[in-house]
Amino acid sequence: MSMTSTYKSDLQIAQEVEMKKIMDIAGQLDLLEEEIEPYGHYKAKLSLNVLNRLHTKEDGKVILVTAINPTPAGEGKSTVTVGLGQAFNRLGKKAIIAMREPSLGPVMGIKGGAAGGGYSQVIPMEDINLHFTGDLHAITAANNALAAFIDNHIHQGNELRIDTRKISWKRVVDINDRALRQVVVGLGGPIQGVPREDGFDITVASEIMAIFCLAADLQDLKRRLGRIVVAYNIDDQPVTVADLGVEGALTLLLKDALKPNLVQTLEHTPAIIHGGPFANIAHGCNSVIATKMAAKLGEYVVTEAGFGADLGAEKFLDIKARMSDIKPEAVVIVATIRALKMHGGVPKDQLAVENVEALKAGMKNLEKHIETIQAFGLPFVVAINKFITDTEQEIHTLLSWCNEQEVPVALTEVWEKGGEGGIELAGKVMAVIENGKNGFAPIYDVADPIEKKVETIAKVVYGADGAEFSVKAKKQITQFEKFGWDNLPICMAKTQYSLSDDQTKPGRPSGFTITIREFRPSIGAGFLVALTGEIMTMPGLPKKPSALNMDVNENGQAVGIF
Amino acid sequence: MSMTSTYKSDLQIAQEVEMKKIMDIAGQLDLLEEEIEPYGHYKAKLSLNVLNRLHTKEDGKVILVTAINPTPAGEGKSTVTVGLGQAFNRLGKKAIIAMREPSLGPVMGIKGGAAGGGYSQVIPMEDINLHFTGDLHAITAANNALAAFIDNHIHQGNELRIDTRKISWKRVVDINDRALRQVVVGLGGPIQGVPREDGFDITVASEIMAIFCLAADLQDLKRRLGRIVVAYNIDDQPVTVADLGVEGALTLLLKDALKPNLVQTLEHTPAIIHGGPFANIAHGCNSVIATKMAAKLGEYVVTEAGFGADLGAEKFLDIKARMSDIKPEAVVIVATIRALKMHGGVPKDQLAVENVEALKAGMKNLEKHIETIQAFGLPFVVAINKFITDTEQEIHTLLSWCNEQEVPVALTEVWEKGGEGGIELAGKVMAVIENGKNGFAPIYDVADPIEKKVETIAKVVYGADGAEFSVKAKKQITQFEKFGWDNLPICMAKTQYSLSDDQTKPGRPSGFTITIREFRPSIGAGFLVALTGEIMTMPGLPKKPSALNMDVNENGQAVGIF
Repeated sequence: MSMTSTYKSDLQIAQEVEMKKIMDIAGQLDLLEEEIEPYGHYKAKLSLNVLNRLHTKEDGKVILVTAINPTPAGEGKSTVTVGLGQAFNRLGKKAIIAMREPSLGPVMGIKGGAAGGGYSQVIPMEDINLHFTGDLHAITAANNALAAFIDNHIHQGNELRIDTRKISWKRVVDINDRALRQVVVGLGGPIQGVPREDGFDITVASEIMAIFCLAADLQDLKRRLGRIVVAYNIDDQPVTVADLGVEGALTLLLKDALKPNLVQTLEHTPAIIHGGPFANIAHGCNSVIATKMAAKLGEYVVTEAGFGADLGAEKFLDIKARMSDIKPEAVVIVATIRALKMHGGVPKDQLAVENVEALKAGMKNLEKHIETIQAFGLPFVVAINKFITDTEQEIHTLLSWCNEQEVPVALTEVWEKGGEGGIELAGKVMAVIENGKNGFAPIYDVADPIEKKVETIAKVVYGADGAEFSVKAKKQITQFEKFGWDNLPICMAKTQYSLSDDQTKPGRPSGFTITIREFRPSIGAGFLVALTGEIMTMPGLPKKPSALNMDVNENGQAVGIF
Repeated sequence: MSMTSTYKSDLQIAQEVEMKKIMDIAGQLDLLEEEIEPYGHYKAKLSLNVLNRLHTKEDGKVILVTAINPTPAGEGKSTVTVGLGQAFNRLGKKAIIAMREPSLGPVMGIKGGAAGGGYSQVIPMEDINLHFTGDLHAITAANNALAAFIDNHIHQGNELRIDTRKISWKRVVDINDRALRQVVVGLGGPIQGVPREDGFDITVASEIMAIFCLAADLQDLKRRLGRIVVAYNIDDQPVTVADLGVEGALTLLLKDALKPNLVQTLEHTPAIIHGGPFANIAHGCNSVIATKMAAKLGEYVVTEAGFGADLGAEKFLDIKARMSDIKPEAVVIVATIRALKMHGGVPKDQLAVENVEALKAGMKNLEKHIETIQAFGLPFVVAINKFITDTEQEIHTLLSWCNEQEVPVALTEVWEKGGEGGIELAGKVMAVIENGKNGFAPIYDVADPIEKKVETIAKVVYGADGAEFSVKAKKQITQFEKFGWDNLPICMAKTQYSLSDDQTKPGRPSGFTITIREFRPSIGAGFLVALTGEIMTMPGLPKKPSALNMDVNENGQAVGIF
């Protein structure tokens, strides 16, 4: 079984499992029939009324899964998230998984799933990785309708006196399309509009995606949409969606998408998959509504955040938890020996060779993330996601260090064994929730000045000596103070590959400062994005896109996805 | 009732009706449970297996609803389509309606539904007019993925030697966005791709929409997608999707969308709503799969085609019916006295005044369309869709003329009375099917030369003296003959407002020729589009878009759509 399974693709494994009808999955949960809107036989949207009806019910325990800084070796954070949920279920606990929904664009470009892997996957994986229930398409439509309203406003007389050189709202597509990064629109003469420079991002980079994932309900969504700053006028004052009067229409376009999506894992554990913002220019977590609904429906909620703990977990705890009163009970920090060895300097093609010294050096990266979670006052467990190439000596080294440091640790084999491979981890997580001290608090005070908030993240989370600000960034801070935007949380846009802002520095760099080149205000989402470098918001396709292998077989089934 | 009803919006009427669960609607039909994929409680997709399973079952009778040339007065073709279906149901017949799904873009721009009106609507109308089941989003995604594959191919070395000045494949959005009509993409230096002129159409203008609506099944869809000509290489030879190798991926993106959508009317008559191509640069009918499935599931299928009989019906009969072996049993030609008066020269603001002379002049337009349907050898009924402003004398004039000409005619009041208002029409339709002679044949032979096919349409359908061809069009014909594309049907792109190619000529113009300025080959769809003028494939928004009135109320319901 385990030998052959390594030769099966994720899609094959997923398609071999007999799924339960989604009404049966939903039937295990505290849901009324009218609260379940099936989308086909294996997906459903859940009514937002669930949150009102269960308002007084005690919340389940939220467990946040994060990781060391990602490496090309892979850490398996989503796989551990799914596996841990399955493990709780095997232990007789009502567990629900809450995860982000994947973007279609990268699926067409490069192999690599976003729905777990092996025997710890959410299914139907081909649907989840393609159009799913259309949430991302609704966000694309709302984003681009807004862009059309802006250009139409200018074309029809520009009553708001928008400076066409200062339009910050970009169009989006959910495709990796580098040719759209920089474009000129409105060409062709006076009947076709006003020519101007413009650009397209991928849909998940839209501020609407960030808003969607932070909104408490439809009315909150509408308020946040209304606050979006789309441009500046000729007096350099912000122009908002509310100024254009289209926040109602945008809310209407998003009203069904805002209902979270219920699916199942390979072991029939319920999973709510909803929203998926970037983890650099946005906060990288599934929707607040999904996490809250999961907490109303399950005893244990296993959820994740993007990239490593320096980005995803920091933002989960400083942005999402702060805005929503979601209080995590424990954090799981995922690492693999392979990835730690890469942090210790081993190149990818030599990971199969035992290298204890490199492992020890790389463990410094894990150590820093442990300190970060401790700084947030949260109980945690380190999950070592086992690979077949890990040696006895390497495993012993890592476990011994954890024991010496009194770091709770568990080995997991969730890719190969599903929930069974996460039982030890689930037990340790329950133990730290029961016995650990939870003194959770965000790491900075939103009332602090912008510079101080950035500095706190840099020092406490990244281990930097401090933060520097470009001339442009300093000018923006002055402007933001004038607009009253200085009391918002900070959303750091930094490379995910290093604790520093230099992606070539793995492990645990020291003696560095980070430099904020500029800010992007996401006033609708309610945070200020601080950019340490160029962040790619529209990926490109490789020479041989994975689309070349995709097809539909004679039974109408997907082939060639992963 | 009828007095107050005139003060209710279509959305209010629609939201006041208690819908049946879609599983109950589906349950009345010859469907297995696993063939019904619910999308929420009131929409479903139907498995393509239905067509295989019922392959040997006798088809129901297909009735095509068409109209006189549209005027700003409105004819109510969709409303009659829905009302007639409801009327058949009231007569105890198993009737199913097959209609196009609306585009989201215009919904945000100008008031005006695409799902019937008054008491003859398909519901849930707000869903149908917004994202529905995501079909148009899937087509947008497939269209734009293809565009990205093309630009990526060029960026990665251009093995196919595509001439970047001769890329015919455009990107699309389902938004009215004039600023995207003409753009320059690929700006920003060598890392961002190859700069070139480009443009966006609205999604329904995509050739993929036309293909989607003509495909017999998934494999046929894939074949057609592979044939799309996206560009010409530096030797002026066509480059196809199959050359790029992505027809499988595009099919995968469309596999769920290809399943037709089941909804209901206000009177719970089943309606299949699927696909919606332009009626000028494409053929303007719902999908072949929808019509065929409706014919397997109902005794009577009421379906429509875009614009007037000169465009929609001609294409239904010469393109859709020819490619699919769908054989209509009868045609309904919808007219209103108001619209006929406009064809007779009355301006819109004087339509409430009795004007028998103008009516008589305008009836010439109806007369021509009757002759056209007779030329196709089909039985027909004229449906006079009554308005409150119609006078006794006007109605008498029109009915008398029909009786003199032995033209079957029925008055309908489907907007105000629903199915009850279409009973007379349904009876007449059943009578002509029973008694009329059906000698249906397309109007031209596809093996005829291109010029002759165009000329036949111009003479027989438009009443023109002939057709002329620009120098460019003539050059294209020579080229098409070389590529073996000359044996395809013709898809005329002509103004919908006149039988001629001059939109200022209402009624029944004579003594004119039409001029083909250029052709656009739609090789995937399998027809040659012949353009008589500029056809707008990307609408713009008005100064006060209807989006300004849209919102979601405290119950999460749509407000302000129509």
